Amino acid sequence: MTSQQSKAGLEDISVTTSTITSLAGETGELYYRGYSIHDLAERATFEEVVGLLLDGELPSRAQVAVISRDLAAARALPGSVREWVATVAQRFGRSVHPLDVLRTTASMLALEDPDRDDNSHAANRRKGIRLTAQLATALGLLARRRDGEAPTEPSPQGSHANYLFRALLGREPDEVEERTLDVALVLHAEHELNASTFAARVVTATDADLHAAITAAIGALKGPKHGGANEDVIELLQEIRTPERAEQLIKDRLAQRQRIPGFGHRVWRVLDPRAVHLAELSRQMGEKTGDTSWYELSKLVADIVRREKQLNANVDFYSATVYFKMGIPTDLYTSIFACARLAGWTAHVLEQWSNNRLIRPRAEYVGPAPRPFPAIGGR
Amino acid sequence: MTSQQSKAGLEDISVTTSTITSLAGETGELYYRGYSIHDLAERATFEEVVGLLLDGELPSRAQVAVISRDLAAARALPGSVREWVATVAQRFGRSVHPLDVLRTTASMLALEDPDRDDNSHAANRRKGIRLTAQLATALGLLARRRDGEAPTEPSPQGSHANYLFRALLGREPDEVEERTLDVALVLHAEHELNASTFAARVVTATDADLHAAITAAIGALKGPKHGGANEDVIELLQEIRTPERAEQLIKDRLAQRQRIPGFGHRVWRVLDPRAVHLAELSRQMGEKTGDTSWYELSKLVADIVRREKQLNANVDFYSATVYFKMGIPTDLYTSIFACARLAGWTAHVLEQWSNNRLIRPRAEYVGPAPRPFPAIGGR
Repeated sequence: MTSQQSKAGLEDISVTTSTITSLAGETGELYYRGYSIHDLAERATFEEVVGLLLDGELPSRAQVAVISRDLAAARALPGSVREWVATVAQRFGRSVHPLDVLRTTASMLALEDPDRDDNSHAANRRKGIRLTAQLATALGLLARRRDGEAPTEPSPQGSHANYLFRALLGREPDEVEERTLDVALVLHAEHELNASTFAARVVTATDADLHAAITAAIGALKGPKHGGANEDVIELLQEIRTPERAEQLIKDRLAQRQRIPGFGHRVWRVLDPRAVHLAELSRQMGEKTGDTSWYELSKLVADIVRREKQLNANVDFYSATVYFKMGIPTDLYTSIFACARLAGWTAHVLEQWSNNRLIRPRAEYVGPAPRPFPAIGGR
Repeated sequence: MTSQQSKAGLEDISVTTSTITSLAGETGELYYRGYSIHDLAERATFEEVVGLLLDGELPSRAQVAVISRDLAAARALPGSVREWVATVAQRFGRSVHPLDVLRTTASMLALEDPDRDDNSHAANRRKGIRLTAQLATALGLLARRRDGEAPTEPSPQGSHANYLFRALLGREPDEVEERTLDVALVLHAEHELNASTFAARVVTATDADLHAAITAAIGALKGPKHGGANEDVIELLQEIRTPERAEQLIKDRLAQRQRIPGFGHRVWRVLDPRAVHLAELSRQMGEKTGDTSWYELSKLVADIVRREKQLNANVDFYSATVYFKMGIPTDLYTSIFACARLAGWTAHVLEQWSNNRLIRPRAEYVGPAPRPFPAIGGR
């Protein structure tokens, strides 16, 4: 056997070249296609980032209009899919994980896609935009119907952030709320070869279709070591409750070697630059609602964990309080992450297809040596 | 950045240790847990291989009985899932790919699983066996209903091969047919870190659940560079039709640099030992039906491709004619592969959980250098 042993979990191993995201974990720099995450967070909309990630360049005003139109046009779900989501919402209520529903919906939408048997770049781009719109609708439908509320009608216009907010909460966002969700979508849209994106590329590398790849990615995002952590953050903050209790509770957890959700990252050695923006959004949402106690508690916890464990808050930590202050149910946070990351997943699927090669590693066998087969009576 | 560049597609890179499968591509040796694939093909049933893969040792007679009982007990689908598969079968007929249906079914079954929120070893083992039984039923239901035939009732006894045959074809297999399908399942049950299994491990490595992992794996299996090739083999043989046409047609294809489906493999440099057994099964099925012309045409094509291109037939090449002579529709072959591979996927999910670490590689960034953000009017 000529295989080489790589580091566990492929840590620090580059498995492909990519023109999408540059990420320097030691210096805290993050760029999508050469544009700083700070510029994007301050100046770009989700629609602009979709164009940037999928096509490589920031879209012009006319190109943004086309992306907005395509997203809006794809919002209505095929009848059978809408019916399935509504039935699940009514039957299971809050007892099933929304990501399981979103993953199944993505898989189901493969059957209905007008570009079903087409794996061309143009078709995959259309499929990616379509899924981005459709899964926002599916998530909203689930969120509203499971609580016995009327679902939001898919609107033929408005930004993706505006639509997603209305789909989830059944009301029009104000300007701060809409921009806050928009920035959160921008910050979550893409992050190089994270586990879900890598899963999407492994699936694509067999020449399987985009829906198969996105379905795999949603499955990977569910894990608490990836997207699933932001839901646990709220649980932690609710357990802490008041600033006086923070220090002891964190220390106890660390002493028991429990993980603190929302801290640490495989790649970031310094503070994740996205966390800076999400912290600011968290503060703004607090001020807007006249209650900054959650933001302040978050800052306190971040200080304690950094001091005690030399770990920085990650993107999940502050996004949790942002969504919480919007009034979004906790178990939907990772699904909102998925709605944003669809842009990055699609960009990586397109890039993988552009120079596709099967991703098929080896395992180092450390099991039993060859042995004779015993008859069933002799085992 | 301290990352190291790996070979493209992770070729020959060992990314984990494993005690499941030993595979020597240069010498043609293949072992599951130390047992030669030749012994397993000649002497083991699928149920014994399930026990071997999941638990590490060949099961005793009593343990086999428990596995058989657990498989049989899980055959009935939850009502809502059965209804969805039946509706899809009637609505789409043969126009959608069965693997898309199987992938969606696997994802949907997550919602209904009695061990839903349990990621323990015991629960994951139960989920794997349950899915193995359920997806056989789902595939049979789809196969029968889309052709307007009555579906086979999930039977509370009988081997998995017997049940799968009846589910797909609506009749009792004879002894040769049942053993042939059983051996095909044994040969397809596991194959180290192939792309679908690796996808399942990437998903599991985020601490996501078994259904998420298996759903990803089914998506990866669909690609023609992985499981999807066995469906194209029949198309090739049908195009060749008669032995006289084989040589010219293959040479033309090779001259046009077209891929010959069913040939070549990332790991096997010599003949895949599984292909030897599948060729023999193909011959037996030919003799049984009084028509060995497909087997003979396969052998001829294999000889030509080996001579002209130094490529060996892989596991997909002969499994295609085996299933074809059973009368199974071509587009179901990769789904039968999935039904068998569920055993290996489950074994790898269990192994990944036993020492779990996030699989998160890096990409080498080769895109645009940092650049200023232009106002939308100036793009």
